[in-house]
Amino acid sequence: MIKEKGFVRTILVENPSLSDNTADAQRLEQALKKDLDADHVRIPLKILKSLPSKLRSWNFKAKAVLFKDLSSWILVDLLEPVIKKAVLGTAIDIGTTRIVIALVDLETGKDIGETGFDNPQAAIGPDVLARIHYSNRENGVFELNRLVIDAVNLNLSVLCEKHGCKKEDIYLVTCAGNTAMTHLFLGIESFWIIKEPYIPCVNIPDTQPAGNLNLRINENGVVFLFPNIGSYFGGDLIAGILFSALDEKHEPCLMVDVGTNAEIVVGNNDFLIACAGAAGPALEGGMSKMGMTAKPGVIDKVWIDPDTGDLKSHTIDGKKPVGICGSGMIDLAASLFLSGRIDIRGKLSSHACGKALFKKDGIMYFVLVDKAGSDTGESICLSQADLDSLTSSKAAMYTILEVIVKNTAGLEFEDLEKFYVAGTFGSFINPVSAISIGMLPDIPVNTFEVLGNSSLGGAKELLKNPDAFERIMNIRQSITYIELNVNQEFMNMFSGAKFYPHTDRARFPSLDNKI
Amino acid sequence: MIKEKGFVRTILVENPSLSDNTADAQRLEQALKKDLDADHVRIPLKILKSLPSKLRSWNFKAKAVLFKDLSSWILVDLLEPVIKKAVLGTAIDIGTTRIVIALVDLETGKDIGETGFDNPQAAIGPDVLARIHYSNRENGVFELNRLVIDAVNLNLSVLCEKHGCKKEDIYLVTCAGNTAMTHLFLGIESFWIIKEPYIPCVNIPDTQPAGNLNLRINENGVVFLFPNIGSYFGGDLIAGILFSALDEKHEPCLMVDVGTNAEIVVGNNDFLIACAGAAGPALEGGMSKMGMTAKPGVIDKVWIDPDTGDLKSHTIDGKKPVGICGSGMIDLAASLFLSGRIDIRGKLSSHACGKALFKKDGIMYFVLVDKAGSDTGESICLSQADLDSLTSSKAAMYTILEVIVKNTAGLEFEDLEKFYVAGTFGSFINPVSAISIGMLPDIPVNTFEVLGNSSLGGAKELLKNPDAFERIMNIRQSITYIELNVNQEFMNMFSGAKFYPHTDRARFPSLDNKI
Repeated sequence: MIKEKGFVRTILVENPSLSDNTADAQRLEQALKKDLDADHVRIPLKILKSLPSKLRSWNFKAKAVLFKDLSSWILVDLLEPVIKKAVLGTAIDIGTTRIVIALVDLETGKDIGETGFDNPQAAIGPDVLARIHYSNRENGVFELNRLVIDAVNLNLSVLCEKHGCKKEDIYLVTCAGNTAMTHLFLGIESFWIIKEPYIPCVNIPDTQPAGNLNLRINENGVVFLFPNIGSYFGGDLIAGILFSALDEKHEPCLMVDVGTNAEIVVGNNDFLIACAGAAGPALEGGMSKMGMTAKPGVIDKVWIDPDTGDLKSHTIDGKKPVGICGSGMIDLAASLFLSGRIDIRGKLSSHACGKALFKKDGIMYFVLVDKAGSDTGESICLSQADLDSLTSSKAAMYTILEVIVKNTAGLEFEDLEKFYVAGTFGSFINPVSAISIGMLPDIPVNTFEVLGNSSLGGAKELLKNPDAFERIMNIRQSITYIELNVNQEFMNMFSGAKFYPHTDRARFPSLDNKI
Repeated sequence: MIKEKGFVRTILVENPSLSDNTADAQRLEQALKKDLDADHVRIPLKILKSLPSKLRSWNFKAKAVLFKDLSSWILVDLLEPVIKKAVLGTAIDIGTTRIVIALVDLETGKDIGETGFDNPQAAIGPDVLARIHYSNRENGVFELNRLVIDAVNLNLSVLCEKHGCKKEDIYLVTCAGNTAMTHLFLGIESFWIIKEPYIPCVNIPDTQPAGNLNLRINENGVVFLFPNIGSYFGGDLIAGILFSALDEKHEPCLMVDVGTNAEIVVGNNDFLIACAGAAGPALEGGMSKMGMTAKPGVIDKVWIDPDTGDLKSHTIDGKKPVGICGSGMIDLAASLFLSGRIDIRGKLSSHACGKALFKKDGIMYFVLVDKAGSDTGESICLSQADLDSLTSSKAAMYTILEVIVKNTAGLEFEDLEKFYVAGTFGSFINPVSAISIGMLPDIPVNTFEVLGNSSLGGAKELLKNPDAFERIMNIRQSITYIELNVNQEFMNMFSGAKFYPHTDRARFPSLDNKI
């Protein structure tokens, strides 16, 4: 919902008189400045052209669509005071893998609908590195930019049509993405992001007319891109902090966004400390590559049958199983560990697993679903290699959390009032399972809260609340970004975390009555 | 010359390093903000696109072309640090009758050249009123705008070619014109300027990208239009005040701009009071319609031969005379009065004029040049009707000066340190003659200073001196605009001023030894 006053406001302009011959534009500006408590409001030439006759035909009352840039408020458009059409905004999460678009009613703050689609730049390269290398070719930036902009325009058309909306009624667009995706969305040089000393072209892109970016919305519409802190700390994470409201909390909270990388922020209204997991090579790609993408038939939950001790599983849409996704893998590892099927080193135990184990090419496999129960014609298994990879990932996650919360912020995990889990992958993790394997710290389960797509959430928040603009700039300004220093101390901590749940068993008291 | 630092500056940007990963745009912005002592500098997307590789190839040194809008500084373009091409600005005086364009080198502040041409809108209507009426037709504003913009583009091309310059090297355009001309230059609704209560569409137009106005200069160029105070007090006069530096004087000074209207400003760095002569119906059109336009063969100076007492005259370019222009008329009237050929009521004296007088259709004519000496085949005469009209005009001018200086500002004419005469017409007036007929007050002749085209002068001043931007806004803010109240008191003063030099002869002591 719109908090207090949003970006669409009904404005009363003082009537002109012989005793006050101030021009129409300046009287409009005065009314806007008063309403916004602002120093400057820019009125574009396009609006000036017909301002006098419009104001007179509307009896000096109008609906103003407003937005901000770094130096000023902007009058985006001026509409008749009572309009029947909607005034819309669009929030975009520009993910490296997937792009999500949401439509919002700017007057009511209500969500209208959203749609997601694969980032078409994947055709050029699956990851940031490949795309940025490509961007350095002649016309590379242009091609990459064209791909994403065309896809957004197309999907926005489809989304509008689905909800009976018009693209011309979209006035504001807010976009959050990592630094590379944001650069390519703007069509600006991105090459230096990946070259030492890793300098982005821009940290704080200014609000742009939609036409500058070839976004087909209202011709007066404007586009805001969340600022970044550096090449490895993007606007998506700033949007996430905004969405989680970490910057407004009294008690320290933590947010972890597990997307293509794992990014972690801890703090409150007093301090914000962040680190991005890409810097920790142990974690790189690890979390998100675990398991397959969620789709019908994928096992997303695994548990131990309390009566038989057998492993049970649930698939998306209840279809016959075709594979395991990340959250299913964590559940499975937790179940294997709690039932003694893997040891504290994360190794499959032939004794405990019995017939569920087989060996192929020297690698052990645990059969979760046999050939007959599977939809693929093959049994659905977890290999020791998969498990080792999961062990590495969970240990890296725990170590990074430990580094940032304990070593950097000087807190204990128990001090965290909230532990927000953002990102697609994070949305489905069962915290109890993640604690059981020592991936997440052993704090009360109700401390954990799933945020979903926090990048999109932050972009939507800005559409609904003008105050968010200042918060975004303050978050960017006040955050301390920690380069993860993978030194001997880190490696020692990492080694301890590779055990189940940890070499220091006392850290996980909630497991006491489970094992 | 450029005062201190101009709009083109050499900028050193901090080199990036692993310990400072600030983005290129933000490091550039920091350097600019420091150099400009500014809070905000907007960097357009077009410049961002290739910023990283440019900064690197220029070794983090660049030449910045800058300008301002109401809320921020703007980086207009970024050029290599040592450039061989010129960086140019264009000042435009958008007169109702005539448009003058000047080219200025923004780095050295040197004038390159200028050109003048008739405002092509004259084809639609000779004066503001006719054009604004036309603007109310469908496409009226568009047509009027197109005429002036096309003419500026064409003449700018010719001017550039003449001086070996390129239009693409023009980055800044500053335009001064009256309120109506400025509105039509912007292509915005102008109709309400002439309808009670006379409200312009805009008082303070924001700086525009040149493309918004279809001005064909550098594609990143920007255009500034001087602000106005109301429908009858335009940016041309604010430019004039800037040029005369009235706003910086310690002692009170006065500026009168005699163009299509007569506009008067009196003040110093403490106060500025202005009135526009259009409000005084007695003066309306009077001053500028006196005599013919200056051209070869036109009599521009008249004097009394000290030996013979005969009237002598001088023509422009020494050609055979074809008529009399305004300054010639004032000289002639002064000569006629000082030689007793007209009386204190401004009536031709048959006794004193003798054979130089003749009567036709009941009107008396004074022959200045006989048929034989003229180039038109007719003698060149001054009729009593012409003289009556001049009497009215000079009386109106004096009365308005009296109202603003004495009644409004509470000063005496003697308090004026400088009396600036601006405008084409004003440039040629001989102050001694104007004092002799009581048109200008009897203050020392060296108090008078001719400014020439002060509107163009102000527009050029801004190109050369960024500080002028604030001065313009301050002038606009601090000026008190007086509506001339043509009441009984005014009419009494006006009646007194219709005498030669005035009913109160003591006001003109310098005539004591001349008559």
